[in-house]
Amino acid sequence: MGSKVAVLGAGSWGTALALVLADNGHDVSLWSHRVELAEQITQHNENKQYLLGVTLSENIVPTSSLDEAVHNSDAVLVVVPTKAIRSVCQQMKSLLRQDQLIIHASKGIEPSSNKRISEMMTEELGEDIGGNIVVLSGPSHAEEVGMRQPTTVTVSSLNQECTIAAQDLFMNDKFRVYTNQDLIGVEIGGALKNIIALGAGISDGLGYGDNAKAALITRGLAEMAKLGKTLNANPLTFAGLTGVGDLIVTCTSQHSRNWRAGNMLGKGYDLDDVLEQMGMVVEGVRTTEAVYQMAQKYHVDMPITSGLYELIVHEKDPKRVVDDLMNRGKTDEIEHLT
Amino acid sequence: MGSKVAVLGAGSWGTALALVLADNGHDVSLWSHRVELAEQITQHNENKQYLLGVTLSENIVPTSSLDEAVHNSDAVLVVVPTKAIRSVCQQMKSLLRQDQLIIHASKGIEPSSNKRISEMMTEELGEDIGGNIVVLSGPSHAEEVGMRQPTTVTVSSLNQECTIAAQDLFMNDKFRVYTNQDLIGVEIGGALKNIIALGAGISDGLGYGDNAKAALITRGLAEMAKLGKTLNANPLTFAGLTGVGDLIVTCTSQHSRNWRAGNMLGKGYDLDDVLEQMGMVVEGVRTTEAVYQMAQKYHVDMPITSGLYELIVHEKDPKRVVDDLMNRGKTDEIEHLT
Repeated sequence: MGSKVAVLGAGSWGTALALVLADNGHDVSLWSHRVELAEQITQHNENKQYLLGVTLSENIVPTSSLDEAVHNSDAVLVVVPTKAIRSVCQQMKSLLRQDQLIIHASKGIEPSSNKRISEMMTEELGEDIGGNIVVLSGPSHAEEVGMRQPTTVTVSSLNQECTIAAQDLFMNDKFRVYTNQDLIGVEIGGALKNIIALGAGISDGLGYGDNAKAALITRGLAEMAKLGKTLNANPLTFAGLTGVGDLIVTCTSQHSRNWRAGNMLGKGYDLDDVLEQMGMVVEGVRTTEAVYQMAQKYHVDMPITSGLYELIVHEKDPKRVVDDLMNRGKTDEIEHLT
Repeated sequence: MGSKVAVLGAGSWGTALALVLADNGHDVSLWSHRVELAEQITQHNENKQYLLGVTLSENIVPTSSLDEAVHNSDAVLVVVPTKAIRSVCQQMKSLLRQDQLIIHASKGIEPSSNKRISEMMTEELGEDIGGNIVVLSGPSHAEEVGMRQPTTVTVSSLNQECTIAAQDLFMNDKFRVYTNQDLIGVEIGGALKNIIALGAGISDGLGYGDNAKAALITRGLAEMAKLGKTLNANPLTFAGLTGVGDLIVTCTSQHSRNWRAGNMLGKGYDLDDVLEQMGMVVEGVRTTEAVYQMAQKYHVDMPITSGLYELIVHEKDPKRVVDDLMNRGKTDEIEHLT
């Protein structure tokens, strides 16, 4: 028999994950804070705004009442933007029971505090609940999950029982779920990949080739792993689905907002024009500033992040950023990781 | 003052590396065993057969005399197909001095012996010379190197002095060279990536999306690292330029022979037709059989390699190969690597 699951956030990723859960026989409440979005989804049996062309299952019930969504649910999945995490947690705190499984599938780092999503959630929900939070992350365009194309993701938490419960909840023959015990590495990978996607877009925008882009992705991965190791993550996690897997999907797809922003920067547009033309937050720009600060604080050498920071904050020429990366001193590939 | 370098093998990669060396002020002999190819290159100052559109420098001298190429050279770079490695080494053995730097930039594993390139070379040249052989590998389309687009590679050997000498020989502002002390990992990565490229092509040929391909590349990387660890490589090397970097370039480019062969298999052509239509050796097919045997011998679980082996040897349906990969038991991402 299926469980009752509350999915908080009816964007493209929340809607796609609601479909996976419904396919597995669970009853899903799909919550949006916007009354009209919940009504539109109910009316059309489709989320036309965020996941066009995918008919939703009957056991997905849209709602704009957080109480209705969370009440009596066995599991709560949080899929809202980084900046909405704290307020959603504050709203749901009084509705939670101790035995509910809490999962999040958001990617980011809080700019002001440099905290990961599960750290922010733990601060809001308390240690008892926070210590069991599971993160779900991996290389996954929501559109492809909606079309039931093969997809793999990773789940991780501090509590192995909760991790396995989340794996059981989501796993099916099109959606393969791996476990990983390195919560820090899984969360950092998802956040930092947007910086590298920005860099890959710049390289493509400058007209550089596949060699340059592969170099940026690989060396980007190395500096993600270096920072991760300083923050007690396992460097090998960055070679997994939530590291290199997610990097590949983000850096080689023109659907990625961060890649597109980088591509325009590489073509010579200035940052203000790019951000205006994108019409929405480019997560990689905010993350670059946050991670640059973290690199300074922990004395980690992150040349790609630093180069992009110079570009974003001091308007350094993108071609000079890439050329300077090629002309650094001679380096060993992995000596900082072993 | 520049050195004198012999480049043995005038294919696209040998020719591109000769250009890098010439750009760095070295005098290069570019050797081909085919008299007419050496003559054509001399006549046109261009390798029209393998690197069309790139004018060669004056300090590259084509020759079909191995003696002329190797004599008086400070360094010898071997860039021939895996199956020609032993015979080229046998021919040049009597021409070598003890103080010459020996580098190879070939990728493969000998099917009959499962030996790496530097192991084959050491058997032919003797331990004294063989122990100092440097490998050069990384994400690099020769065409882009010929156009002086930014490119990164890795050099590695058992002798750190030789590794650094090779780094100094090749490094310039468009061609960035990293060192890595893990010779085994660097050589295995270059050989095994062709298997995964075959798999990525099959996934694309079946019409699966970016999520599936990123999963194949990432899980392919994990099984490369698992086998590598058994053979005493450092798992972190597979997260570097010669592992994931080379995988990205090979799996996301339609120029890759292995990707194209996989793509046709995914579209339903049978293997004999594919090989006939390609008109040349598809390295990934031979490597799949060799690595399958190694996985059996060392008891390493390599599901992607095994699936492709079933397809190549027992004509298993490609869609079933991919679907079976999605339906395996529940797994942890990195437990076999830590």
